Amino acid sequence: MLCQAASQMGIKMAILDPLQGCPASSVCHEHVLGSFSDGDAVREFAKRCGVLTVEIEHVDAATLEKLEEQGVDCEPKASTITIIQDKYRQKKHFSNFGIPLTDFMEVDTLHSIEEAAERFGYPLMVKSKRLAYDGRGNAVAQKKEDLSSVVASLGGFEHGLYVERWTPFVKELSVIVARSRDGSTVCYPVVETIHKDNICHIVEAPAEVSAKIKKSATDVAEKAIKSLEGAGVFAVELFLTEDDEILLNEVAPRPHNSGHHTIESCYTSQYEQHLRAILGIPLGDLSMKAPAAIMYNILGEDEGDAGFFLAHQLIERALNIPGASVHWYAKPEMRKQRKMGHITIVGPSKASVKSRLDKLLQRDTYDPKKVSPRVSIIMGSDSDLNVMKDAEVILKKFNIPVETTIVSAHRTPERMYDFAKSAYGRGIEVIIAGAGGAAHLPGMVASLTSLPVIGVPVKTQSLSGLDSLLSIVQMPKGIPVATLAIGNAENAGLLAVKILAKTDPELTDKVLKYQDDLRDMVLEKAERLENIGWEEYLK
Amino acid sequence: MLCQAASQMGIKMAILDPLQGCPASSVCHEHVLGSFSDGDAVREFAKRCGVLTVEIEHVDAATLEKLEEQGVDCEPKASTITIIQDKYRQKKHFSNFGIPLTDFMEVDTLHSIEEAAERFGYPLMVKSKRLAYDGRGNAVAQKKEDLSSVVASLGGFEHGLYVERWTPFVKELSVIVARSRDGSTVCYPVVETIHKDNICHIVEAPAEVSAKIKKSATDVAEKAIKSLEGAGVFAVELFLTEDDEILLNEVAPRPHNSGHHTIESCYTSQYEQHLRAILGIPLGDLSMKAPAAIMYNILGEDEGDAGFFLAHQLIERALNIPGASVHWYAKPEMRKQRKMGHITIVGPSKASVKSRLDKLLQRDTYDPKKVSPRVSIIMGSDSDLNVMKDAEVILKKFNIPVETTIVSAHRTPERMYDFAKSAYGRGIEVIIAGAGGAAHLPGMVASLTSLPVIGVPVKTQSLSGLDSLLSIVQMPKGIPVATLAIGNAENAGLLAVKILAKTDPELTDKVLKYQDDLRDMVLEKAERLENIGWEEYLK
Repeated sequence: MLCQAASQMGIKMAILDPLQGCPASSVCHEHVLGSFSDGDAVREFAKRCGVLTVEIEHVDAATLEKLEEQGVDCEPKASTITIIQDKYRQKKHFSNFGIPLTDFMEVDTLHSIEEAAERFGYPLMVKSKRLAYDGRGNAVAQKKEDLSSVVASLGGFEHGLYVERWTPFVKELSVIVARSRDGSTVCYPVVETIHKDNICHIVEAPAEVSAKIKKSATDVAEKAIKSLEGAGVFAVELFLTEDDEILLNEVAPRPHNSGHHTIESCYTSQYEQHLRAILGIPLGDLSMKAPAAIMYNILGEDEGDAGFFLAHQLIERALNIPGASVHWYAKPEMRKQRKMGHITIVGPSKASVKSRLDKLLQRDTYDPKKVSPRVSIIMGSDSDLNVMKDAEVILKKFNIPVETTIVSAHRTPERMYDFAKSAYGRGIEVIIAGAGGAAHLPGMVASLTSLPVIGVPVKTQSLSGLDSLLSIVQMPKGIPVATLAIGNAENAGLLAVKILAKTDPELTDKVLKYQDDLRDMVLEKAERLENIGWEEYLK
Repeated sequence: MLCQAASQMGIKMAILDPLQGCPASSVCHEHVLGSFSDGDAVREFAKRCGVLTVEIEHVDAATLEKLEEQGVDCEPKASTITIIQDKYRQKKHFSNFGIPLTDFMEVDTLHSIEEAAERFGYPLMVKSKRLAYDGRGNAVAQKKEDLSSVVASLGGFEHGLYVERWTPFVKELSVIVARSRDGSTVCYPVVETIHKDNICHIVEAPAEVSAKIKKSATDVAEKAIKSLEGAGVFAVELFLTEDDEILLNEVAPRPHNSGHHTIESCYTSQYEQHLRAILGIPLGDLSMKAPAAIMYNILGEDEGDAGFFLAHQLIERALNIPGASVHWYAKPEMRKQRKMGHITIVGPSKASVKSRLDKLLQRDTYDPKKVSPRVSIIMGSDSDLNVMKDAEVILKKFNIPVETTIVSAHRTPERMYDFAKSAYGRGIEVIIAGAGGAAHLPGMVASLTSLPVIGVPVKTQSLSGLDSLLSIVQMPKGIPVATLAIGNAENAGLLAVKILAKTDPELTDKVLKYQDDLRDMVLEKAERLENIGWEEYLK
């Protein structure tokens, strides 16, 4: 994928890979056969390159260091690869820089691992320091009696081990950070990574977390990368804990599986960004050009031909799904759990890409309640619910995920403040607020958010809702509320649909069809009236 | 670019190209040196291919036909290439199928060209039948005396010539049509192509023309391609005349310069689409994933190194522009007017990509009046203008292109109907309608469009605008109007900004800053009041 990005820009790539016919060999200018862990091969290869970079961190870092001394331009720097290669050293490095991490400890004897277990408790995560990825090199001890067998399963203490305190997390997040040659860093939107058997399975972009969590994830990621040397793209894998804390899990000093979606979803892909960074080209635009993306890894489900057959069935379905792009790496050998390719689905909303993924996986987990709402319906009191429910009904008719709740401007002012301030970050696109009487809720919320707010005046006993209407509509300059007819929450929902449809042609068609149906309904009534006359009609 | 798309999907490509080190050679599985106009070379090459396709129509069609007879799968079919290669034959073919064309006529003697000139008038377009592209093979006779020199400049009648009636057009449009192996066709959004010295210079996607024109352009394009044989992607170049008529100019039986933008702007690029079509994979999603794109061709501005220097200056600027992707074809030789690469700028609105193109070209042609408006401000009468102007003022503050006009529901009902029906197709995203008294305009417009309509009640003498407010807000179910305070057009503009900001993070930041400024203004007043006391304050 790095070579594909280079090809587009006319950048000449030479690759060092031990495998004849390896995936990159047909998309580079030169393929040198050789191992990236063989010092001589790397040295010889470096002579052809203006800049030397890595796509895997398990390279011969000592050779890179020597090459750097001889003036070869390695990006990122050998020092970075050296730190990352050894996961224990990596943790120590980030810990020294004040990056939040799970507690960890080096262990080299049964005594020291028992001591660590006493401190951290069970289950205890035991890890190899080196050559660990996709869950390999990790093992869990559930109790003291497990310790020696777990150590043995990882190759014994002489292999280099450390332990970590078990971290219950609610989500795994990832931030791709680009660092230019001058050391400045910029971040892609935070994504959520969903693992299965310790292997990255699904990536959702952007992550469905609050703006505050996004900010702290980005802060931790940037701070971590600033502590390393050299240019390039880095992936920072993070844990989000129950207390909304962000902990660094590990860093990859290269383009990463959690950034594959950027090829289709962002203005500049992580691969082009890596090239820009290492070549000293200004960094590109990291924002998403489409509202939502999901990446699904094509993992080998079986060995050999059986595995190919299953993968091809999956791809065939993907080719029928709008917005889905298939990446097939053309690896010559199929193995169980091997990453053989990936599929990225890009679309106009989170709900649409999620339901497309369901179609791809022939499952039906799509639950509008589980998809982040795009429209929030709030009301000052449950007495407004009988009216406001109509907004939810019509939005659901258009298949738009929605949340409905009670937020009172007068009785829960803090809740209202938090609601309004966090709505944008939570992915809400339109707010519908219903209120009766001295109806302050819509206006107050509008003053606290950049989102369009739609107000529904709820009918009151004394003034039939005229008081509500005037309270909502007569807002001062600077704070618009889109006000609708008294008690007409259905129209509020429809207005929200029209606002969302603006950038969604499929939804626009549905709105036009809805309006046509309204017309047809009236025409039918007219025909009936003409046919049967008013006396019969009024019966 | 076809090979790049194939590489992503793991499709193996062999190419036939006479040039060692040609652009595609480093991104294909096999490069066979040979000419595509050499029958033997094509025959030999075909043996390696599952499907044979073309990226240029000037190939040896007779050989393709023979290969087809021998069972080789050529897509599109040799018959299509044969028709397209000969521009006169192409015109006759489409004319037979009832496709609208400029008048044309074969000429083979001075007598016949004079006769044609008498019929079509001057200026007269004289064209070579074959090997004509990028303006080569075309010449214009201004008067009778020019005819023989123009014929000579095109190589004489024995070269095969025809003439066309001079067509004054207002725009050149292009539609990329994909046709699957079963003959079904689908179209990409209509784009506008801007030529300079007969060479494609800039492509704007989508074209800024009405939905009606888009539909007739798409209809003509689809009908034209349905008349040809074989699968693949086709470009249909069209003229839009002053009377909104669509005329076919010519067809390319392959991916085309006017579809380059699709690589970044559409869910499925024209290249992936071509592969899908010829391989019998279901066709992909042709819609745009970003709202607007502009493609700019990097043409050689000078020969050799001087030309490379100028191109690199342009690219350097492009690399600094957000949303810009640089494609550099790595052609070994620079020549004046040669297509050396292209730059695609994708962004959240037409206005943003146009101003970015200006930045790229170091020019300042960006004129908000010339950019298609995103918001339309209408009012029932010029007496409302004093109020409604505030909407334009605030929208311009946020740099949003806007149009302001008078549309009366009661006095210009047809105009109102046309306005409402065409707004979406013209690229309008929000409509602001101001009206006083029996204020029917906002509601009527809302009933005719899928766009969100914002209503501004204008103050009346007799009822202070309460009549306007109630007329606008109390809409029946199904037809929402976002109603604002009486006379508050500024808030209508702001609500439109908030609606547009939903998908534009830059604009969202501006809205938040605007709200912060409002707060600071009040805080300053509070401070002043606290400092100087009410007596002094009220002075």
